[in-house]
Amino acid sequence: MNKVLVTGTSVAEEFLAPLLSAGFTVSNPTHLLSENELIEELRDATAYLLGGDEVATRAALAQAEGLKVIAFLGVGYESFIDTAAAKELGIPVTYTPGTLTASVAEFTIGQLINANRRLTQYTNSYRRGEREVEQKQRDLISRTIGIVGLGTIGTHIAGILSSGFGATVNYYSRTRKHDEEARLGIGYLPLRELATQSDALIVMTPGNDTTYGLVDTDLVSLLPNGTLLVNTARPAIVTSRALAQGLADGKISVAVYDGFYDGPEAAPLLQEFGEDRLLITGHIASLTSDARDGMSKMAVRSILNVMTNGADEHFIP
Amino acid sequence: MNKVLVTGTSVAEEFLAPLLSAGFTVSNPTHLLSENELIEELRDATAYLLGGDEVATRAALAQAEGLKVIAFLGVGYESFIDTAAAKELGIPVTYTPGTLTASVAEFTIGQLINANRRLTQYTNSYRRGEREVEQKQRDLISRTIGIVGLGTIGTHIAGILSSGFGATVNYYSRTRKHDEEARLGIGYLPLRELATQSDALIVMTPGNDTTYGLVDTDLVSLLPNGTLLVNTARPAIVTSRALAQGLADGKISVAVYDGFYDGPEAAPLLQEFGEDRLLITGHIASLTSDARDGMSKMAVRSILNVMTNGADEHFIP
Repeated sequence: MNKVLVTGTSVAEEFLAPLLSAGFTVSNPTHLLSENELIEELRDATAYLLGGDEVATRAALAQAEGLKVIAFLGVGYESFIDTAAAKELGIPVTYTPGTLTASVAEFTIGQLINANRRLTQYTNSYRRGEREVEQKQRDLISRTIGIVGLGTIGTHIAGILSSGFGATVNYYSRTRKHDEEARLGIGYLPLRELATQSDALIVMTPGNDTTYGLVDTDLVSLLPNGTLLVNTARPAIVTSRALAQGLADGKISVAVYDGFYDGPEAAPLLQEFGEDRLLITGHIASLTSDARDGMSKMAVRSILNVMTNGADEHFIP
Repeated sequence: MNKVLVTGTSVAEEFLAPLLSAGFTVSNPTHLLSENELIEELRDATAYLLGGDEVATRAALAQAEGLKVIAFLGVGYESFIDTAAAKELGIPVTYTPGTLTASVAEFTIGQLINANRRLTQYTNSYRRGEREVEQKQRDLISRTIGIVGLGTIGTHIAGILSSGFGATVNYYSRTRKHDEEARLGIGYLPLRELATQSDALIVMTPGNDTTYGLVDTDLVSLLPNGTLLVNTARPAIVTSRALAQGLADGKISVAVYDGFYDGPEAAPLLQEFGEDRLLITGHIASLTSDARDGMSKMAVRSILNVMTNGADEHFIP
């Protein structure tokens, strides 16, 4: 039994070569696997490179008796793996920290500027032959930006906005980071205070049970009128009710999401605010060839490390 | 005779107060003045704050016998004032350097990211219900970016791209700037060589007789296939023929313009390439309230300085 299951379309063939050289066979279904299909694929798998949008449930993992390692392609594994089940079953899980920092930071800052300066709207309206322009946009240099979450990506974003664009940057994080404050010239604020002092609020925490719903109607009610909300992490960190209410009462002027809610609340929000006040993309912030190839190399290396030595640098925390 | 002519809609009333306090009257027509209207308005003007889109021609200036100073609102005065005529007539001209650096740099980097990561297209296609995404975009961190012109704005852009986003940045300028190269970690290249080595080419020179047509079909033919062209300076620095040819043969993948050609060549270009490969806005890069207010304050101060002392820090070079 030496099969590696690789899911999704992100891992280019060239990066799978080291697995073949090491004597593994590779199965790479590229469509979205149902739970039953995943169970079937995992039944005879030794390793599992999770690069698709399927969820590795307890049921699927429990029946994968020969599975020695799960390598998650990316950093937001919480939404895709029942990590408690994996732990109980003794299946180590690796991920690919750092590989998508540049990609997600660039995407987030690009969409922040789009929201701040209305670039998407002006580009679209020019195309339609409209030439009217408001003159009320503000420069980032005169904006106060709050970042919720100061992990690797949040830190990179904070540095570019503070040192590069000259914006005033504050952050909230469970753990205060005095060194980064000094290095980047940024300030710490408790979450509620951060909300009251942000012209733009960037949500950049991992998505998990602690952070889902962190930005709720109560927190949004504290924002100054006309705040830009940028959520390029997981949609559910902001409740859809808080978004709807903030857009309706003007606390939120423009909201950026990369990936959107998948319940019945999504369509009416898109319908009512989609044209000018919602900038939404489909979970693409890390979908560059650079990020994808870096993740692929790291995930394949982790599989080989675990299979060979039982050790790896990139086990999930 | 103590009338100050203020044109355009950019100068907010509060910034004109110092002129009124100093005993001037203000005339502020807000529509686009014809040459005859401008002649009429200037006939009894002592000072002229040029904030509109009209052109101060030789004919208009020659008949403005009491005119003591022209204060241009912005930095790109070359397209709006016959400076040779002003000089001959002994009318000093001021401008507002530095006031729009942050605004134009932010705009330019925003549109560069939009071109690089196709954010405008993905946001629009999500809105239309399309979810297909290519995975071939590259991160700025792995791109080589060429900047044509290393003035105040070009320098600010170079710093953010190099130090912030980690891109490789080269520049061309008539005058080589060794200090900036060391400070920003950027390299100098002659113009033709810069073209051959740029995944993205940013045009950021003043528009004048020396720079109009600087980027022509010959230079565009040297670009690598698929180069991003970002022209947020003046359209005419790139010939429309070079743009058309570059888009047609693939040397240019996406082009960004802030302001577009006003001849008959514009419509066919927009028609053929507008949807995916031309990101155009209507000369709005510096139209923020911060930039506009900073310019207004500086221009009004220059008028008062010249009227009071005959001196000012911001005469055009």
